Amino acid sequence: MANHGNMYGPSFTFLGIQQCDLDDPKSYADADVIIVGAPIDSGTSHRSGAKFGPQAIRGGDYLPHDAERPHLALRIDALKALKVYDAGDLLMPPGDLVSSLKVLEEATEKISRAGKIPVILGGDHSIASADVAGIAKHRGLGKISMIHFDAHADTGEDQFGALIGHGTPMRRLIESGQVRGDRFLQLGLRGYWPDDKTLNWMRDQGMRSYEMTEIHHRGLNKVLDESFATLTDGCDGVFLSVDIDVVDPGMAPGTGTPEPGGMTSRELLEAVRRICLELPVVGIDVVEVAPPFDSADITAILANRVVLEALSAIAKRRSGTPYSPTQNLLDR
Amino acid sequence: MANHGNMYGPSFTFLGIQQCDLDDPKSYADADVIIVGAPIDSGTSHRSGAKFGPQAIRGGDYLPHDAERPHLALRIDALKALKVYDAGDLLMPPGDLVSSLKVLEEATEKISRAGKIPVILGGDHSIASADVAGIAKHRGLGKISMIHFDAHADTGEDQFGALIGHGTPMRRLIESGQVRGDRFLQLGLRGYWPDDKTLNWMRDQGMRSYEMTEIHHRGLNKVLDESFATLTDGCDGVFLSVDIDVVDPGMAPGTGTPEPGGMTSRELLEAVRRICLELPVVGIDVVEVAPPFDSADITAILANRVVLEALSAIAKRRSGTPYSPTQNLLDR
Amino acid sequence: MANHGNMYGPSFTFLGIQQCDLDDPKSYADADVIIVGAPIDSGTSHRSGAKFGPQAIRGGDYLPHDAERPHLALRIDALKALKVYDAGDLLMPPGDLVSSLKVLEEATEKISRAGKIPVILGGDHSIASADVAGIAKHRGLGKISMIHFDAHADTGEDQFGALIGHGTPMRRLIESGQVRGDRFLQLGLRGYWPDDKTLNWMRDQGMRSYEMTEIHHRGLNKVLDESFATLTDGCDGVFLSVDIDVVDPGMAPGTGTPEPGGMTSRELLEAVRRICLELPVVGIDVVEVAPPFDSADITAILANRVVLEALSAIAKRRSGTPYSPTQNLLDR
Amino acid sequence: MANHGNMYGPSFTFLGIQQCDLDDPKSYADADVIIVGAPIDSGTSHRSGAKFGPQAIRGGDYLPHDAERPHLALRIDALKALKVYDAGDLLMPPGDLVSSLKVLEEATEKISRAGKIPVILGGDHSIASADVAGIAKHRGLGKISMIHFDAHADTGEDQFGALIGHGTPMRRLIESGQVRGDRFLQLGLRGYWPDDKTLNWMRDQGMRSYEMTEIHHRGLNKVLDESFATLTDGCDGVFLSVDIDVVDPGMAPGTGTPEPGGMTSRELLEAVRRICLELPVVGIDVVEVAPPFDSADITAILANRVVLEALSAIAKRRSGTPYSPTQNLLDR
Amino acid sequence: MANHGNMYGPSFTFLGIQQCDLDDPKSYADADVIIVGAPIDSGTSHRSGAKFGPQAIRGGDYLPHDAERPHLALRIDALKALKVYDAGDLLMPPGDLVSSLKVLEEATEKISRAGKIPVILGGDHSIASADVAGIAKHRGLGKISMIHFDAHADTGEDQFGALIGHGTPMRRLIESGQVRGDRFLQLGLRGYWPDDKTLNWMRDQGMRSYEMTEIHHRGLNKVLDESFATLTDGCDGVFLSVDIDVVDPGMAPGTGTPEPGGMTSRELLEAVRRICLELPVVGIDVVEVAPPFDSADITAILANRVVLEALSAIAKRRSGTPYSPTQNLLDR
Amino acid sequence: MANHGNMYGPSFTFLGIQQCDLDDPKSYADADVIIVGAPIDSGTSHRSGAKFGPQAIRGGDYLPHDAERPHLALRIDALKALKVYDAGDLLMPPGDLVSSLKVLEEATEKISRAGKIPVILGGDHSIASADVAGIAKHRGLGKISMIHFDAHADTGEDQFGALIGHGTPMRRLIESGQVRGDRFLQLGLRGYWPDDKTLNWMRDQGMRSYEMTEIHHRGLNKVLDESFATLTDGCDGVFLSVDIDVVDPGMAPGTGTPEPGGMTSRELLEAVRRICLELPVVGIDVVEVAPPFDSADITAILANRVVLEALSAIAKRRSGTPYSPTQNLLDR
Repeated sequence: MANHGNMYGPSFTFLGIQQCDLDDPKSYADADVIIVGAPIDSGTSHRSGAKFGPQAIRGGDYLPHDAERPHLALRIDALKALKVYDAGDLLMPPGDLVSSLKVLEEATEKISRAGKIPVILGGDHSIASADVAGIAKHRGLGKISMIHFDAHADTGEDQFGALIGHGTPMRRLIESGQVRGDRFLQLGLRGYWPDDKTLNWMRDQGMRSYEMTEIHHRGLNKVLDESFATLTDGCDGVFLSVDIDVVDPGMAPGTGTPEPGGMTSRELLEAVRRICLELPVVGIDVVEVAPPFDSADITAILANRVVLEALSAIAKRRSGTPYSPTQNLLDR
Repeated sequence: MANHGNMYGPSFTFLGIQQCDLDDPKSYADADVIIVGAPIDSGTSHRSGAKFGPQAIRGGDYLPHDAERPHLALRIDALKALKVYDAGDLLMPPGDLVSSLKVLEEATEKISRAGKIPVILGGDHSIASADVAGIAKHRGLGKISMIHFDAHADTGEDQFGALIGHGTPMRRLIESGQVRGDRFLQLGLRGYWPDDKTLNWMRDQGMRSYEMTEIHHRGLNKVLDESFATLTDGCDGVFLSVDIDVVDPGMAPGTGTPEPGGMTSRELLEAVRRICLELPVVGIDVVEVAPPFDSADITAILANRVVLEALSAIAKRRSGTPYSPTQNLLDR
Repeated sequence: MANHGNMYGPSFTFLGIQQCDLDDPKSYADADVIIVGAPIDSGTSHRSGAKFGPQAIRGGDYLPHDAERPHLALRIDALKALKVYDAGDLLMPPGDLVSSLKVLEEATEKISRAGKIPVILGGDHSIASADVAGIAKHRGLGKISMIHFDAHADTGEDQFGALIGHGTPMRRLIESGQVRGDRFLQLGLRGYWPDDKTLNWMRDQGMRSYEMTEIHHRGLNKVLDESFATLTDGCDGVFLSVDIDVVDPGMAPGTGTPEPGGMTSRELLEAVRRICLELPVVGIDVVEVAPPFDSADITAILANRVVLEALSAIAKRRSGTPYSPTQNLLDR
Repeated sequence: MANHGNMYGPSFTFLGIQQCDLDDPKSYADADVIIVGAPIDSGTSHRSGAKFGPQAIRGGDYLPHDAERPHLALRIDALKALKVYDAGDLLMPPGDLVSSLKVLEEATEKISRAGKIPVILGGDHSIASADVAGIAKHRGLGKISMIHFDAHADTGEDQFGALIGHGTPMRRLIESGQVRGDRFLQLGLRGYWPDDKTLNWMRDQGMRSYEMTEIHHRGLNKVLDESFATLTDGCDGVFLSVDIDVVDPGMAPGTGTPEPGGMTSRELLEAVRRICLELPVVGIDVVEVAPPFDSADITAILANRVVLEALSAIAKRRSGTPYSPTQNLLDR
Repeated sequence: MANHGNMYGPSFTFLGIQQCDLDDPKSYADADVIIVGAPIDSGTSHRSGAKFGPQAIRGGDYLPHDAERPHLALRIDALKALKVYDAGDLLMPPGDLVSSLKVLEEATEKISRAGKIPVILGGDHSIASADVAGIAKHRGLGKISMIHFDAHADTGEDQFGALIGHGTPMRRLIESGQVRGDRFLQLGLRGYWPDDKTLNWMRDQGMRSYEMTEIHHRGLNKVLDESFATLTDGCDGVFLSVDIDVVDPGMAPGTGTPEPGGMTSRELLEAVRRICLELPVVGIDVVEVAPPFDSADITAILANRVVLEALSAIAKRRSGTPYSPTQNLLDR
Repeated sequence: MANHGNMYGPSFTFLGIQQCDLDDPKSYADADVIIVGAPIDSGTSHRSGAKFGPQAIRGGDYLPHDAERPHLALRIDALKALKVYDAGDLLMPPGDLVSSLKVLEEATEKISRAGKIPVILGGDHSIASADVAGIAKHRGLGKISMIHFDAHADTGEDQFGALIGHGTPMRRLIESGQVRGDRFLQLGLRGYWPDDKTLNWMRDQGMRSYEMTEIHHRGLNKVLDESFATLTDGCDGVFLSVDIDVVDPGMAPGTGTPEPGGMTSRELLEAVRRICLELPVVGIDVVEVAPPFDSADITAILANRVVLEALSAIAKRRSGTPYSPTQNLLDR
């Protein structure tokens, strides 16, 4: 099912961690987390390039690729505290998006059923409709809630007339019942899409969607405070979907649909940390890194750090040790 | 008088809106706003490139260029709520800046007299001396106040020995009486220009000039609070001039004279929104976008969003409907 | 059927020529040539980006976009001597390549049946399987011969397991009988693909495939000399397919699969001119321009010149006036 | 000892100031500050390029290079209020880092003994082990405290098995007693290096190391407040070492080891200003500017501004005139 | 009259040679050649950027800037065999092209009257109308012939309605009688400009204009052979004007109006060498280097080499020693 | 001794071939060729970046990294016909060039003694002094001849005062007797280095050095014809050293010291093929690929092709099958 390493270009794993083979359950029997690449960009409505996202995220680091990453603030090394494997890229030919997404859905279902947390490296955001669906197949309809960082709501009815695309996955997930609308948190929306009709549909589903204006004026932490309780109400777990374009284009230029006025990279990392420390995360995707538009790889490195931040916080949560953001690094 | 579309390269309008012809008043009789390009960069003291600003701003968007742009935070579509036309670029040959600016002055006077709001896409900032002058010819000396976002005061006595240039327009406007010095608000200044002599001249004119230090320590909204009242005191309207270099070079690298330590793009967009919601804006220019120095078009897209933000807030103001920045997007 | 202008970004026509509507036969009744964009890149096996090829080719010129282009060497202006329209981009969603190619096939069939020459701006090379097929439907199986400039033979059996892709179109055309293998000329092949099995299949079809070594040692004109006669033997017309990667990556970096050791841009332009002067060209595509990888737009401009070179030579051929490459420009 | 101007490329001084010759004490007898370039990058563990840092910082400005720079916020011109010379680049061949650093150590010792403030333009951060050592030789072991802006602690035991490198200078300085560990302030740390063992060593030395999380949650000024007193306790002076990668990669992409989640350029400039206003700075280095990875020179310009900010604040401090960050620019 | 060093950015001379002051004749009394920068780009019809040409050409070299350049093929060091000074950039404000060109005309007249060869670093090609005019004022109307490398004839009647611009200088020179049309050699023309009317005017002037097709088919040396004799018939000297866009955009991307299908850099260097070896060159300009569009400075370095090639060949010609292109380097 | 994979960034082998371990002779017992990376750039005199050359060359290909590469012109797959392993990068810290080169020398001696052909991926050209030395230690002083493609002779006496650097390796090899001066062939020299003294030294050694002028006028094949016989006279084997800057900067911009007027990539590939077909090659290095200055990876891909071209021709030579460059691809 899975291709080893990257579908495009040279083959290597996320920061040098061990690889596993999704077709060989023994190869990942002891895993806590399995990283999978979803190298496809034919769901994009504008700039392509996200097919090279998985390899850029895997390799986006200047430190030795030695499968060690001690998190400075959390004082824990996720790649040691957790058992993390890289299953390589799925084979996802760009010409047939529906079939390619089916492959992804099967992969996350398999990983989830095996009791592991899948971390999917996109690819464009159309992959969320599949990777979340796979987990929902295992955990049951409406049993996982969703935290979605993005400049865009991705709740379009269709895209170029098709149901599938990077502008529609959240609609598909809610319509199918895989995720309940009222267990759906969106953070960082802004710009000029979608229109009223779609926004009204979102309201009718009970979605909690925070536009940047509100976050700017009220504060990101306040917004998280008021949302966390709902997310675990009647849900087993939380899926975290991070579209890198939630960050301001100045700090994340390497993406397909950059919308000015976004979060800083610091804010995103802090929020991801808090989510994974406080909530039961059962799956993650990091999407829309488009290397051809990047500058000095800063977007790829940021996405790499989003993955590490999430894993480190998950490890910290499991460790049960205390953490305070105002405590000094050397006192931890 | 006006060239159709872009002076350089392929011809198209701002986000696909309808074009009009400044020589044919019927073509814009029902307009609320008229967009005009001022594609000139021979007023620059350093990097040229802003001559391609108008086409970069017109085309700087990943969404379909379908003349629709529903503003997510304001819940209004300016391109539908207002009648906005694009008159194309004026023909502004680079070799004779004085003559080229004369063409621009005539254009904004004509638009202003027709009762429409001119929105000028620069071009370097030397154009402000002409576009504001055109409006002042119609409205009368000292009848419009000025809000000027910029890293630089642009109040130089001369540039390379000439009166005209992108470092001098604000001086020309005040000296000529077209804008009163004490109705002139500057936001975002920083760096190492101009010298004391010029700063003292500015003080003597009664200008309100906020350097980034003060904005950083007191807050942008506080600074706006204390300035707004004056601006409408004895003035009919406000001209908004946005030099994109007011934003930090990290978020707006595509400009000619980048000065570190600027606003975030979020701050600029919030301030532009507030100004256009609260004050009677009668003209706008967005200048100093220099595409050859941009990265993944992020500066061009930001400038496009500055135009849309202003138009959306003008439309919202005209609609008379309420707006609160802390209200949730889906509750609006 | 056709979208007006570009599918992505602002809308404009090839160098400012008049647009037509493929759904309105009257709009192109007097056309000699119809330009159509095929903005798709989900047939690529590596770097995407060719979906922006049509707009880059349409706009790739520093001269005024005024629908005039007097060819210096041929002393003829194709955009005046011929009636050339731009039908805009076809709507070709990336997620479903098969359906998108079907739209293209219908478009070229329609144009061909109307007696016009279709010129397709790609897009990746998978489009050749459709645009040639459309013409073959009109003219009959095996009635058009093919001249194919490319670093790659594009005769793969499949790509990622699918029949369609930019590595397979020439196989599909021959297998289906749309083009006869022994009326198929390939120029510029090099590198490390395909393998022996495929090369033997090519030989068995009677293809004439010239690798760069042979062209380098024997000369491009000699190779053309020995091939031209066959191409019109039993065929009504010639389809010219130019993959821009036939040119050395140094002169055409903006492409998806750059293979060193190619032709110079001069050689390509000379060869295209000669082909269109001497042979009855009935269709053209220019493909694989991937703007995100370009440098200062030089690849886009080159592709623009390939289109103009072909049109100019077609116009010259129709004019019946003499031409000698060694005659002085000012004596023509 | 010193090469005139830049070691690489054309030769010029920092913003056009006068040059001096370190071998000719008369040439800098009246200096307050001497700028020296340390153009070496063979201490880097990843991307090289910082060898071009000195010339990029010297020339990173769009204003005339006329040796005048009136600071807008401080209302003082450091290049006039202080006597600042540029001694050019030291000759630092890349192949022998130890010898090259020795040259630098001798240079800063000489400058310090002459009673001038050395300002070193790096180069990678390995130079800090030498430039601080030179000053310590003059002032005595443990007599200068250190303020170190950086994403990385640079306290590694070794790098590729060698004691010298850009990951180890702070360890060398403390181990040798040149700087006391408990007079060592670090600001801006983040990411995934170093490991616990090294962090514990740092704690044992009594270092004050602030990770970005703490700075984000407590505020940079609060952190400075609680650290300043210690720094002058038993120390004569403060050395300020600014690794440009302390700033977020979005605002400073031109560096070798970019770590997301950093300070804004505004925050860095404000902090540098405060330090140089309030503390007795006796030496400065600005390091890790790697021009090949920069975008539109924004990182080089930022580093140029860090130097100017420090010089301006030193001049202001010496002037004894008051300064308040909330006072209006035109009232100063 | 002349500014010292570069008008923009840091100040330095061509490869470190000595500077002179055009206002101080003693400073260049013993000169053979004087280099002057003409940093203006407001004559361009499309991309600006050539204002940074002089500094890019002066500094475009990876070797030490030590005023030594032994030419490998000619075995002579022009910077030693000749006395070459750099007079810095002329002050040429972009907003008033006519006045700026007047300054240039006066400079070359002064240099020419002093018996020195002026070498002008552009700037856009509009400068040719001034720099040649200055020499013609000294030597007399029609007394110098012209060799002009360019993709474009630059013989337009006007540009944006003005007589001056980079598309018209050759027309101005011929119309004014400064250069005789029948002593005017053009090499490298191609593309789609100008139209028949202008070409006929060129023919009527007796110009010898070689389009790339003819050069490609007949060979550059043959074309030079048949032209050289005429150029010295009735003329005292030859002016060499090299528009860098004569080279293919692949090898010279950093220019404003790139036209595919040009010479290789090798061909240009060989031709420049032959011209300066065989003909009495009295002035040179190298124009249209636009650094913002360059890639790794290759265009700037090429232009630097064009200058050095010309100077080296002039020195060789003066030395009277033999040269054969087929003799081995080590036998020379 | 050898690091596995790349010293910097993610770890992978040349086009996916099997890795071996230089410390484990069994791992490469059956090898014909062993690829080793020499990731160092502290021998450069100007731009650094070549430390990333090995990974760029290993990964510089758009085809699947599947350890198969059938050469189209030679109709042989070197990666199958030969047994080729990748030993990864040697650990070569940049701060101590002498020690790092010692590691390389030991590696190539070991490989050579094991009867395998070492192929070294640089790194800057200083590595040649070590990699050739290692082979010479095995084969004996003066027993291997040298073919050296380069824009520069690399025969400097010293560099920044040191004996080692990328400008001196050929001098070191001849002085030490490791390679005889009269068995040393240089191809592609040009530009302005070295001076007469060094050239005379070269002549005195009996070197055959072909400058581009001679190659341009006489033809590369003629020059090869007259040199090949000598190279095997008294020598066992030939070492092929390819500095990628022998190719024109237009086609190979990603290098540290680009010199205009070079070979085309086609010419280099043809010459490398001929050399490896006709001469007994016993070692190869490909150096000076500096990825930070590359454009769309074209230089890296070219260097990858140089390696493949050499391996393919070696395989073809061993196969004993005939080859003619004028035979048609499909007839081979």
